[in-house]
Amino acid sequence: MRTVKKVRPSREGRKSRSVLKCPIDKAVEDLHRKLANDRSGEVATYIPELGRANPDWFGVCVVTADGKTYEAGDTDQSFTIQSISKPFLYGMALEDNGQAAVLEKIWMEPSGEAFNAISLRPGSGQPANPMINAGAIATTSLVSGVTTQQKMRRILDGMGRYAGRPLSIDEAVYRSESETGHRNRAIAYMLRNFNIIESDPMPGLEAYFMQCSLAVTCRDLGVMAATLANQGVNPITKDRAVVREYVESILSVMSSCGMYDGAGEWIYRVGMPAKSGVAGGILAVLPGQLGIGVFSPRLDACGNSVRGVKFCLELSRRFGLHMFNAPRVSASVLRRITHVGEVSSNRCRCSDETDLLKRHGSRVTVVFVQGVVVFASSEVVIRELMKRVHDLDGMILDLQHVQAMDFVTRELLAELALLVVRAGKFMSFSHAEHMPKVTQAFRKKLKDRIQFFGDLDLALEDAENRILARHGWKPATPERIDLAECEIAHGMSRQDVEALKALLRLRLFRSGDVIIQPGEDASEMCVLTRGTASVWLHSEESPKKRVATFTPGMIFGEVALLDRQPRSAQVTADTDVELLSLDAGCFDGLTASHPNLQRLLLRNLSQILARRLRATNRDLGAV
Amino acid sequence: MRTVKKVRPSREGRKSRSVLKCPIDKAVEDLHRKLANDRSGEVATYIPELGRANPDWFGVCVVTADGKTYEAGDTDQSFTIQSISKPFLYGMALEDNGQAAVLEKIWMEPSGEAFNAISLRPGSGQPANPMINAGAIATTSLVSGVTTQQKMRRILDGMGRYAGRPLSIDEAVYRSESETGHRNRAIAYMLRNFNIIESDPMPGLEAYFMQCSLAVTCRDLGVMAATLANQGVNPITKDRAVVREYVESILSVMSSCGMYDGAGEWIYRVGMPAKSGVAGGILAVLPGQLGIGVFSPRLDACGNSVRGVKFCLELSRRFGLHMFNAPRVSASVLRRITHVGEVSSNRCRCSDETDLLKRHGSRVTVVFVQGVVVFASSEVVIRELMKRVHDLDGMILDLQHVQAMDFVTRELLAELALLVVRAGKFMSFSHAEHMPKVTQAFRKKLKDRIQFFGDLDLALEDAENRILARHGWKPATPERIDLAECEIAHGMSRQDVEALKALLRLRLFRSGDVIIQPGEDASEMCVLTRGTASVWLHSEESPKKRVATFTPGMIFGEVALLDRQPRSAQVTADTDVELLSLDAGCFDGLTASHPNLQRLLLRNLSQILARRLRATNRDLGAV
Repeated sequence: MRTVKKVRPSREGRKSRSVLKCPIDKAVEDLHRKLANDRSGEVATYIPELGRANPDWFGVCVVTADGKTYEAGDTDQSFTIQSISKPFLYGMALEDNGQAAVLEKIWMEPSGEAFNAISLRPGSGQPANPMINAGAIATTSLVSGVTTQQKMRRILDGMGRYAGRPLSIDEAVYRSESETGHRNRAIAYMLRNFNIIESDPMPGLEAYFMQCSLAVTCRDLGVMAATLANQGVNPITKDRAVVREYVESILSVMSSCGMYDGAGEWIYRVGMPAKSGVAGGILAVLPGQLGIGVFSPRLDACGNSVRGVKFCLELSRRFGLHMFNAPRVSASVLRRITHVGEVSSNRCRCSDETDLLKRHGSRVTVVFVQGVVVFASSEVVIRELMKRVHDLDGMILDLQHVQAMDFVTRELLAELALLVVRAGKFMSFSHAEHMPKVTQAFRKKLKDRIQFFGDLDLALEDAENRILARHGWKPATPERIDLAECEIAHGMSRQDVEALKALLRLRLFRSGDVIIQPGEDASEMCVLTRGTASVWLHSEESPKKRVATFTPGMIFGEVALLDRQPRSAQVTADTDVELLSLDAGCFDGLTASHPNLQRLLLRNLSQILARRLRATNRDLGAV
Repeated sequence: MRTVKKVRPSREGRKSRSVLKCPIDKAVEDLHRKLANDRSGEVATYIPELGRANPDWFGVCVVTADGKTYEAGDTDQSFTIQSISKPFLYGMALEDNGQAAVLEKIWMEPSGEAFNAISLRPGSGQPANPMINAGAIATTSLVSGVTTQQKMRRILDGMGRYAGRPLSIDEAVYRSESETGHRNRAIAYMLRNFNIIESDPMPGLEAYFMQCSLAVTCRDLGVMAATLANQGVNPITKDRAVVREYVESILSVMSSCGMYDGAGEWIYRVGMPAKSGVAGGILAVLPGQLGIGVFSPRLDACGNSVRGVKFCLELSRRFGLHMFNAPRVSASVLRRITHVGEVSSNRCRCSDETDLLKRHGSRVTVVFVQGVVVFASSEVVIRELMKRVHDLDGMILDLQHVQAMDFVTRELLAELALLVVRAGKFMSFSHAEHMPKVTQAFRKKLKDRIQFFGDLDLALEDAENRILARHGWKPATPERIDLAECEIAHGMSRQDVEALKALLRLRLFRSGDVIIQPGEDASEMCVLTRGTASVWLHSEESPKKRVATFTPGMIFGEVALLDRQPRSAQVTADTDVELLSLDAGCFDGLTASHPNLQRLLLRNLSQILARRLRATNRDLGAV
């Protein structure tokens, strides 16, 4: 037996690693240490092999639905899974036969009788549920495969996916199970009699004995439980162990029939679907949150591990794990609700455009959705949009911060979009590309009558263009414009413009060319005279992101001209581009040669900067 | 009977209100319309009054855990609650006696027998659970009050809180119940015999008959169910109907024993704790999400409303409401993780300070937590912090976007903070004031060894000061500084400075005075020479928020000087303040009188603006 290392409390203020013990680790270890003193109960001896267990063995393991493990004690000690395999076998039978065929053979009502009672329903002969022996024997007969070997291949593969490692049979226990399993043979033939098992029941029964004898550790049980908590995907290997739709069936039979004749009390006190085995294991699942595996061989009168039951009970109380202790899920689905008057695309707009958008932007709502979206949270999104839809020209739903969205939500949002479009309004989704399935579902349903954008910026630009178009605005001309029409030449005399032109160098770029590279020391300012160019931010955290688009007449690169710091972003040509660049040396030279021209440049520059600063401050304020 | 109005599909593109029907309303109405055609089952007649119901009555109501109602059909039709009151009575017995005393009298295991079976446990004589008649009669005897009237006052008050309106007894049904209730009298005396009821059982039994005869509508049932889904708080009135800790006990007995001998099948197929009554009502609860109330008098062989069962089943399938269909709760708890090198306080820093913070800021992590935080989500927060803590000087936990935090999380965060502080690091919480209970719990536990800030900006400023202090930085002097030392005078000759000084007007403010008011047209620029001043944003959405603090030598108000637009923010004096202001007219006059001074001012201004633009762009990029 592995002994538990005592962690002595350290002196305050001492900077040691030992003082920095995670409070969750500490709680799990403290509870393990406390319950290790409980020596009540008896090791099962109904087959001789089980009687050889060390009664002091005690391991506990908590695995979160995203795969973090907390454990204490004998978590590497191998033991046989026994009845804990029953819910997993039930899942395999569902996968291999479909739900209707399985329910025809095995019902799902608690029997109120002992685990080894025959409990067949009058008339149909169905075992009452898959958690009693009769039910599990019927389940095993339904698992794919004709021979014992074929069935075991399927079972070992399935169980291995749950555990995240290959599992094997404890041969000694299996032989012991098979040699003493007369009652189970009787049950198997009774099931054959009622045609619940439709062919020779013996190959399936041997597979039943074998899978009861699977060797696992309590860490395996924790991971298997976490796989059920994570909707059937092993959170460590990321392998799917069972199709998602059957997870709720598995957990339902565990919840109503998992703890033998104490199911009501277990749900009342512990509040988690669970299953125990006579070798001393208990597996419990808090759906969406975590799985628990416990192992200690001494059993109570019901055949459940004494320390295992107490560990689950006390952990549930300590951490508030009762499944009906459920806070409102809808509270945080809306990250932010705003409109196009308050949040702008990064396309640089002239002041007339900006004014129009400020006046009419509230006609397009922008809703930021976040988190894991199930019915109760999508309902909040739909409710908010329905409240506003009559007064809107359109809406943007940003899904960037959505981690997962269930099928129901996709359907409901598709319906919402359809009716919004039918009412003559527009609806855009941004960051829909992170969810190809959602997009597909929408596309199919909406027949391209709706817009999908890879990011919010593009969705905003589109919405702005729609608003501007409604108010008679025309997109910028693709023609070359003259320096005199550019913002940097504002208020300059013809002479000043000519003097400035003489200092500028014409540069040509092809669509897609990089004009400015981040990190460069170059500090010239660029006056765009033809085409459009965009500024992109790259960061380690997030994908490449457009932060501005310039149209002819605008300048860029002016910040580096003024502060002489390295470039902070990339600028690329969206189209073929012509620009006039002013380098820092020429600009500085103006102090002596053309102080008045420099003054005018500085005046225009500072006005442009002031306008941009106001806009970015507005964006920041809105965040 | 209220008939269901048919909504004809409108022509595409027609802008009418009728086309804008919420898809959830539509789904509920469609399902109601479809099931209204089902005329199977029989109205209960075991008491004559029930037989008078119109068999076609059919109402459905779904109420979200935050109080939004979706309904169709006869939702105003009154009927008697019958057995649906049992879980609520059980909650009152728990509140009035405590859990231990109640469990001594009534157990919580499904009986596997009919609702009117006596089902007393051998030995103790305890009714098997509070959902059968024997259990509910015992429960009623435990509710506060000696006389029938006293008990009914308690019961009517309690039920009224769940329903959010005063409820009353249907006298005719009550008389009918009492006159025919011989079996229940036998049960009551049997309970007296086993001392489960310790005094005359008759006053309690009359209260039992009365509360079975409470008149409710299916909208009432929906609201009562939503109250249980919302942890005991009526989501419409916001009144607490039952203490939070007993909600899980109530839902547990509903889950294991609520649907008579079909509890296993109900949980398997519908997946929600529920309770039905012989008058045709069904109440179902999806914890944390919603409540359902259905009413239709025709019953199936088990005594459950035929249409009611089908509605719950189909709604559950349609909207994915099975309680074990649980996505990972932890996925969205971390809104953002960053550090002080990436996010700055709004205190304006000089370039040396900015450099220091950029170099060493990663030693202080800033974690933004959001949503409803239960164990599995707080575990993620703790795990992230534990991963980083060894390499940190401190951490800031921002709680602004936390909607609710359970007791376990408060405890765990307090423990985490304690060990961080013990290891010689610092820990700050921002927006802790939104959760007085959290703050109190922390304060008590941590004995003021930890910092709490009303907002993130102040927490960041404190963290920055700690980092700067570690690197030998001293806070700005409170002394007056000369114009020549100010950023606006950078690179100016003594003469230029004197000329500038002559144009500036000295203004004095007291601590707390407003220097600039948002919306003002005034466009002078201010040079701060003594004290500090802060910029505040006010918006309808959020509370007043500091966006910048200026220290002596800095300028503010320059954007309006350049673009002549109204002020966008408020500036107030943090301390007594002296400043020199330059008005727009004087500045414009320089074009003629001192063009070179204007040029120098513009150069410095544009450099200051460029620096600020780079900083705000960095902040925006980080967002």
